[in-house]
This record gives sequence, structure tokens and C-alpha cells, in this order.
Amino acid sequence: MTTAAVPRGGGREAITRAARESFAERGYHGSSIRDIAARAGLSLSALYHWHSGKQDLLAALIEESTEEYFRRCDEALRDAGDDPAARLGALVRATVEYRISRQVESTIAASEWRNLDPAHRERLDGMRAAATRLWADLVEDGVARGAFRCEHPGDARRAVVAACNAIAHWYEPDRGLAVPDLVDRYTAIALRVVDCR
Amino acid sequence: MTTAAVPRGGGREAITRAARESFAERGYHGSSIRDIAARAGLSLSALYHWHSGKQDLLAALIEESTEEYFRRCDEALRDAGDDPAARLGALVRATVEYRISRQVESTIAASEWRNLDPAHRERLDGMRAAATRLWADLVEDGVARGAFRCEHPGDARRAVVAACNAIAHWYEPDRGLAVPDLVDRYTAIALRVVDCR
Repeated sequence: MTTAAVPRGGGREAITRAARESFAERGYHGSSIRDIAARAGLSLSALYHWHSGKQDLLAALIEESTEEYFRRCDEALRDAGDDPAARLGALVRATVEYRISRQVESTIAASEWRNLDPAHRERLDGMRAAATRLWADLVEDGVARGAFRCEHPGDARRAVVAACNAIAHWYEPDRGLAVPDLVDRYTAIALRVVDCR
Repeated sequence: MTTAAVPRGGGREAITRAARESFAERGYHGSSIRDIAARAGLSLSALYHWHSGKQDLLAALIEESTEEYFRRCDEALRDAGDDPAARLGALVRATVEYRISRQVESTIAASEWRNLDPAHRERLDGMRAAATRLWADLVEDGVARGAFRCEHPGDARRAVVAACNAIAHWYEPDRGLAVPDLVDRYTAIALRVVDCR
């Protein structure tokens, strides 16, 4: 048990970090609330002061990182102006940067979504649907304005999002390409997928 | 417990089907060997006649479906001839058709790969690497012969594979597009991603 990897104190933040480590190493079912408390350098009762349990921790991890994703998208789109190609590039940048900065949460969300309780799942499915809508509106707008020529905007959108999301599964921070270069490559791919004029 | 969903008898096949159902519904850690035996309509000792346990069942499911993937790829490439675009279309078709026909195994493999024991994992990582090589050789060959103009063949390959693989996560057999239409759409996307002349 590597309690030393997690700095003591900081309450909620230390617990979040410990839960992330534990879920990533052992999966949701393989993680115990005792192990998470120990990793955070806290007693079990101190942990329960902050969180009601493992389920709550899983949902909080996914929710907090998804909120960061929306913040990144909003900022990128705000700077992109009105041009469909620039807006597509902005969403690609936000997604690539997010998948790299939140690689662990991305993998946990992909593996453990099924283990969310119905109430959490419904709320987080709603956030996921909002992200899908953001992409869909952007691609459909580009098609409507004649900037993107792809015949099937829904498939183009799914292909671009899948390509960006997959980065979380293969990117190796120490060996990988610099993030801005990766953003450029995926922007070029996305523009080809939507068949940008 | 839905033992009725699995026909009795058939030994190995009934067990495979039961394991697939159980892993898909409850995940690897949430599945018990007793539940799998009951779903297969077998006693625990009869199950152990065929399989040494849950780990063996997980590895067998992934291995058997991956072998089907290679068979599909081989057949598709054999029929495609030598043209890079036709060969890319062949691999896209094999992958799209596989992800739809083996949707459950695809999802299990994605979620439970981490739960493979090291020996199984090494063998199956080897199969996965062989599939990556198949795609990489094809895209690199198309670039070398001037058929594909993409500057970064590795990223183009990853994007195409990620888009095709993601179909397993969203395709709904009852509501979805007919498979040949989906193959056409993804072939068109793949040709744009590699920037085919």
C-alpha cells in the first residue's frame, strides 16, 4: 500500500487523489473504501466525513473531470469566433488536451461507467449527452453553412470524437508527441473527416 | 438468475455463452463462477471439467473473438487485391462487421483487459499488436505508393481504428443503420482520414 504517494491532509482533495489511484490500479470492484482511506492517510471515519462511500467517490471523480471538459470546451469555443473550421479545431483542441491532462479519469470513466448507480448514471448520462450535442450542433452548423461537405454529419462527428477520445488509451506522456503537435494532427484529421472545403 | 436464457447441454459452448452474459451484465469482478455454471445449466464440477476458472473463461472469450477478427481480416484482404484504397476498405469492412457481430465481446475486452492475468495478457497483447501491425503496414504501404497523402500515417491509422472500434459502444442492432451502409460510411471516412487521392 503506497500511502506515501498521497500527501496527508487536504481532506477532500487527498481522498479524490486516493480514489483515482485505487480505481485506476484495481478497478471499482477491486477497490475498497478502507484502502482508499489508507492511501489518503485518513481514518475510515474521517473519510466518511467527506464522502458517503465508494459509489459517491466514483461519481464525483467522473463529474468533476467532465465539468473540467465543459470548461475547456467553452473557453476554446469562446476564442474561436464564428468560423466552422475554427470552431471544430477548438473542440478538437479542448478534447485532445483534456484526454491527455485527464488520462486517468478518462480510463476510469470508460471502464467504470457501468458501475454507476442509476441516480448518478442518469445525471452523468445527461452530461455526456450535452457534450454530444455540443459536437453535433457544431458539425451540423458547418454542413448547413456549406463549410463541411460530409454527407453523414452524425458519423463524421462520432469518428472525430472516437479518435480524440482514444488518445487517453495510448498516449504516453514521457514518450509521446508534444501536445500542441498532437492537437495539430488531430485537427487536420477532423477537418478531413468532415470534408472541410 | 436467467438459466433459461442459456440452452442446456453443449458443454463448452453453453459455458462460453453464460460467461459472456455474466461478464457483460456484472463485469469480471462482479461475476462468480457459481453464477456462470448456473446460467449454463451445469454443476460447478461439470464446469471445472471444461475450464479452470473465471480467468480462463475471460481469456478464452477474448481470444476466440480476436481469432474471428483475424479470420475476417484475412478473408477481406484476400478478396481486395492489391489496391491500397481497396485494401483499406477491406479492413474497415472486416472491423465494422466484427464490432457489430461481436459487440458484447468487444465491450468485455475493452472493460476487462486490465483484469487478465499476466500470462494471458501477454499472449493477448501479442494478438492486439499483430492487428495493429496489419493496419500499420496497410496505411504505410498506401503512403509509400503515393495512394494516401496523409502526413502522419500512425495518427491516421489510430483515428480510423478508433472510429471503427467505437461502433461497438453505440450501435443499436434494432434501431441502427443496415451494416452495409455503415461499412460504406466508414470506408468513406477512412479514405478521407488517410487523404486518399
